[in-house]
Amino acid sequence: MTRLFRIENILNLLLIFLPIALLLEYGLHASPIAIFGASAIAIIPLAGLMGRATEQIAEQVGEGLGGLLNATFGNAAELIIAIVALQAGLHELVKASITGSIIGNILLVFGLATLYGGLKFERQEFNRTAASLGATLLVLSAIGLLIPAIFYNVAGERALAIERELSLEIAIVLMATYLLSLLFALRTHRHLYVGHSAAPEEELSGEHPRSFRRPLLLLLAATAGVALMSEQLVGAVEATAETLGWNEVFVGVIVVAIVGNAAEHSSAVLMAGKNKMDISINIAVGSSMQIALFVAPLLLFLSYFIGPRPMDLLFTTLEVVAVSISVLIAALISQDGESHWMEGVQLLAVYVILGIAFFNLPG
Amino acid sequence: MTRLFRIENILNLLLIFLPIALLLEYGLHASPIAIFGASAIAIIPLAGLMGRATEQIAEQVGEGLGGLLNATFGNAAELIIAIVALQAGLHELVKASITGSIIGNILLVFGLATLYGGLKFERQEFNRTAASLGATLLVLSAIGLLIPAIFYNVAGERALAIERELSLEIAIVLMATYLLSLLFALRTHRHLYVGHSAAPEEELSGEHPRSFRRPLLLLLAATAGVALMSEQLVGAVEATAETLGWNEVFVGVIVVAIVGNAAEHSSAVLMAGKNKMDISINIAVGSSMQIALFVAPLLLFLSYFIGPRPMDLLFTTLEVVAVSISVLIAALISQDGESHWMEGVQLLAVYVILGIAFFNLPG
Amino acid sequence: MTRLFRIENILNLLLIFLPIALLLEYGLHASPIAIFGASAIAIIPLAGLMGRATEQIAEQVGEGLGGLLNATFGNAAELIIAIVALQAGLHELVKASITGSIIGNILLVFGLATLYGGLKFERQEFNRTAASLGATLLVLSAIGLLIPAIFYNVAGERALAIERELSLEIAIVLMATYLLSLLFALRTHRHLYVGHSAAPEEELSGEHPRSFRRPLLLLLAATAGVALMSEQLVGAVEATAETLGWNEVFVGVIVVAIVGNAAEHSSAVLMAGKNKMDISINIAVGSSMQIALFVAPLLLFLSYFIGPRPMDLLFTTLEVVAVSISVLIAALISQDGESHWMEGVQLLAVYVILGIAFFNLPG
Repeated sequence: MTRLFRIENILNLLLIFLPIALLLEYGLHASPIAIFGASAIAIIPLAGLMGRATEQIAEQVGEGLGGLLNATFGNAAELIIAIVALQAGLHELVKASITGSIIGNILLVFGLATLYGGLKFERQEFNRTAASLGATLLVLSAIGLLIPAIFYNVAGERALAIERELSLEIAIVLMATYLLSLLFALRTHRHLYVGHSAAPEEELSGEHPRSFRRPLLLLLAATAGVALMSEQLVGAVEATAETLGWNEVFVGVIVVAIVGNAAEHSSAVLMAGKNKMDISINIAVGSSMQIALFVAPLLLFLSYFIGPRPMDLLFTTLEVVAVSISVLIAALISQDGESHWMEGVQLLAVYVILGIAFFNLPG
Repeated sequence: MTRLFRIENILNLLLIFLPIALLLEYGLHASPIAIFGASAIAIIPLAGLMGRATEQIAEQVGEGLGGLLNATFGNAAELIIAIVALQAGLHELVKASITGSIIGNILLVFGLATLYGGLKFERQEFNRTAASLGATLLVLSAIGLLIPAIFYNVAGERALAIERELSLEIAIVLMATYLLSLLFALRTHRHLYVGHSAAPEEELSGEHPRSFRRPLLLLLAATAGVALMSEQLVGAVEATAETLGWNEVFVGVIVVAIVGNAAEHSSAVLMAGKNKMDISINIAVGSSMQIALFVAPLLLFLSYFIGPRPMDLLFTTLEVVAVSISVLIAALISQDGESHWMEGVQLLAVYVILGIAFFNLPG
Repeated sequence: MTRLFRIENILNLLLIFLPIALLLEYGLHASPIAIFGASAIAIIPLAGLMGRATEQIAEQVGEGLGGLLNATFGNAAELIIAIVALQAGLHELVKASITGSIIGNILLVFGLATLYGGLKFERQEFNRTAASLGATLLVLSAIGLLIPAIFYNVAGERALAIERELSLEIAIVLMATYLLSLLFALRTHRHLYVGHSAAPEEELSGEHPRSFRRPLLLLLAATAGVALMSEQLVGAVEATAETLGWNEVFVGVIVVAIVGNAAEHSSAVLMAGKNKMDISINIAVGSSMQIALFVAPLLLFLSYFIGPRPMDLLFTTLEVVAVSISVLIAALISQDGESHWMEGVQLLAVYVILGIAFFNLPG
C-alpha cells in the first residue's frame, strides 16, 4: 500500500512539468527539445490521472458498462497523442506509435515486470490457460494488423494504389472483431476476466468511497491536459528529432509509445512486485490487443475526417518484424506458466536491440 | 443423429447440380461463370459421397488397411481437381489450391468449428498433448513445403534453373516422411489415433451394416463424377476469373480449396457441435499435414508425366506468409487445450483478411 | 555403461586420424580434400577429449566454478575452428558455423536423439516447464543475433556503413545477457539446472577418481590438437569446396558445424537412449543458446584484434530463416512435454531439406 502511494506520489510530482511545459512554450519560447521533453514528461502523470478517474467511474456504473469504459479508455492518452499527430499529417509517427505500443507493452512493460517481480520472488506463477488464450487472441489480432504491410511487400509498387482501400477493409474487419471481443469479455465470458481484475478493484474499494462527479471532472481535466501537452509534443517533434538525429519511426516506436503508455506500465510493474503476475501479463497482453483491434482501426477511420489525407496501415518492414517477434514472444511466455528474473532481462535485451535497430534506421 | 442426417440430406440435395452442370456445358453452352458455379457446387456432395464410401470400405477391410485408405483418400476430391488442372498446365492454380487447403483447414474449418461449438458450449476442451503433437508435425511438414519458395526468394533469379531440381528433391523427402508417418499412425503408435477416430466410427457402425460391393461402386461413381465436374470447373476457370476480375491465385487459394474440402469441412464443424473438439482439431490439422506431405509431392511427381511441363514448389510470397501464419496459429491453439467462440471469430477474421489480400493481389 | 564405453572407444579410435592428417599434410603433401577430411575426422575425438577433461576439472573445483568452466568450454572446439577461420579472414565461414551450430543442435542432434530414444521407448517424457524456459531464452537470444541481418534487409545498401557498428552494439548486449544468464544458472537459480546435470555427473563419479593434474594436461593437449587440426582444416577448406562444388556457407552451416559439435552431439543422443530426455533437450537447447549469447559476440569482439578486418553479424537470409525455423521448432517441441520417434524423423527431414537448400545456394 505504501508503495502504491509512493508511485502515485512520484507520478503526481511530475505534474509540475505541466506548467513548466506551458511556460517553455508560451512564456520563454524555448528550444523545441526543451518543450518536447517537458510536454512528454507532463503527459505521464496526466495519463495516470485519466486511468484512475476512469477506474473510479467504472466502479460506480457497474460491471458491464464499467468494463466497457475501462476497455475503451485504457489507451486514451496514447489515442489523443496519435489524433493530434494525425491532424498534423505525421502518419509515420502515428503508425510507429501503434507498433511501438505493442512492442513496448510486451518487451518493455512485461520485461520490467518480470525483472522487478523476479528480484523479489524466486519464481512467479500465473494461470497458463488464461494467459495463453489472451496471447492467442493477440497473435491473431497482430496478424490482421500486419497483413497490409506484408501485402505491399509482396505486391510491390503496383499495389500502392489499392493499399489504402485494402487497409480500410481490413480495419473494418479488425474493428468488428474488437466489438465481438467486448461481447466476449463483458457478456458471455465475463467470469474469465473478473477473476483477474478482482484484485486491484478490491484494493481500490478498500479506499474511502468517492462520488461520481469528482472523477468525471478529473477525467475531463486530465484529458484536456493530455490534449494540450500532445499539441506541444507533436508541434516540437520534428525540430527535436532533427536536432537529435532521431528518425520519425524511432520517435514513434520508442519515445511516444513510452510516454503514452507510461501510466499503465507502472501498474503492470507494481502488480508483478505484489506477485500478481496474472494481472501483470493481462495488462501487457490486453493493452497490446486493444491497440491492434481498436486504436489502430479507429485512427485509420479518423484519418478520413481529421487529417490532411487518409492513412493506410502500411508499416515499415522493421516494424512488421518487431511486432511479429513481440507477439510470438508473448505467446511463448504465456505458455510457460512461470517466470524468473532472467526472462525479464532477456525481454529487455530484445527491446534494447530493437531500439538500437530503430535508432539506426536510415531516415 | 438427426442433425447428421440433415447435413447429409442437404449435401445429397446438392447432387442436383451434377445434371445441371452437364446441361449447362453440353446442352445450353452456357456462360463459363454458370458452368464454373454449377460444377463447383456439384463437386461438394460428390466429395462427401467419396468420403463416406471410403469410410465404409475402410471399416470392412480392418483397421490397418482401412486407416491407410482413409488417410490416402482423405483429400481425393481435391487431388482430382488438382490433377485436372495439372493436365491443363495451370500450375499456379494447382499450387494455390495446395496452400489454400492448408489455410482453409486451419482458419476456415477450425474457425467455423470453434465458433459453432463455442456458441453451443461455453468452453470446449481437448487433449493438449495429442493436439500439440499433431501441430508440431504439421509445422515441420509446412516448413519442408515452403523451403523451395524461401530458397527462391533468397537465391534470386539465378536460382530459377535449379529450382525445379530442388523442388523434386524436397518432394522426395516429404513423401518419405509421409510414408514413415503412416507407419507411425497405423503401426507403432496406432493407439494415439484410435482414441480419436473411435467416436465417428462407432456412429457409423451404429447404422445398418452395408456390403463391401455397394460402397466400392459408390466410390467409383463419385470419383468419376468428381473427375467430370473438375474437367468442367478447370475448363471454365480462366474465363470465369477474367470476367469476375479474380486472379488465378485467389481462385486456387479460396474458391478451389473450399470446393475441394467442403465435405470434410462439414464433418469437422459437426464434431465441434457435438463437443468432440479432439476429432475436429484432428481433421483440420491431420488434413493439412496430409496436403503438405502427400498431396503436394504427389502432384509434383505426377507433373512429370501428365502435365505439359514439370511443376515446382515455388509458392508466391503471400502464400508462404499465409501458410506460415496458419500453421503457427494451429500450434498456438493446440497448446491452449481449450477453445471459446471468440477464438473462432478471430480465426475467421484472419481468414477474411487473408482473403481480401489474395483478392487484391495484382494478377 | 558398456554402451558409453563403446561410444568412447569409437571416438578414441578416431584419434588415429590425427597422425594421418599430419602425415597427409606434411609427409605426402596430399590433395586438399584428403587433408580436409582427415583433419575434420580427427577433430571429433579431440573435441570429445576436451569435453571430458573439462568435466573432470569442473568436478574437482566445485559446483560454482565448475559450472562456469563447463558452460564456457562447452563449445570450445567450435570456437577454436572459428578463431582459425577468423584469422584467415573467412567471415562467411565463421558466421555460417555459428548458425550451423544452432540449426544442427536442434534439428540434427535433437532429431537423432528423439529418433534413437523413440526407437527404444514408445513414448518419452520430459519436464515441460524446464524445457520451455530454456526454449524461451533460446528464442530471445536468437532474435538478438538475427536483428542485424534483418536490419540490413530492411535498411538496404545504405545501411552497410553502420552495419558493423550496429553489430558491435548488439554483440555487447548479447554478451551482457550471457553474463547475467551465468549469474542465473550458477547463482540465483542453480537448483533448476543441478537436477538436470546430476545424472551424468553421477556416472562419471562412479569411475575411479582422477587427480587434478591429468585432466588439465589432457585438456591442454586436446586443445592444441584441435587448434592444429583446425589450421589444416581451414587451410584446405577453400580448395576442397571448389573441387567438390560446395559453397562457403554450406561448408560452414553443415560440415564445420557437424565436426565442431560432434562430441557433444553423441552425448545428447546417448542420454536419449537412456530415456533421460531432459538432459538431451538441455544439451541441444543450452548449447544453441550459448552459441548465440557467448560464441557469436566473442568471435565478433575477437575479429577486431586477430582478423584482417572486423566481422559483422550480417547473416544470409537463408541462415536467418533457418535459425528462426529451428528455434521456433525448439520452442514447439519443448512445450509438448513428450516425444516419439516420428518427431525425430521430421526434425531430420527439415534438417535434410535445409541442407539441400544450403547446398544449392548459388556461390
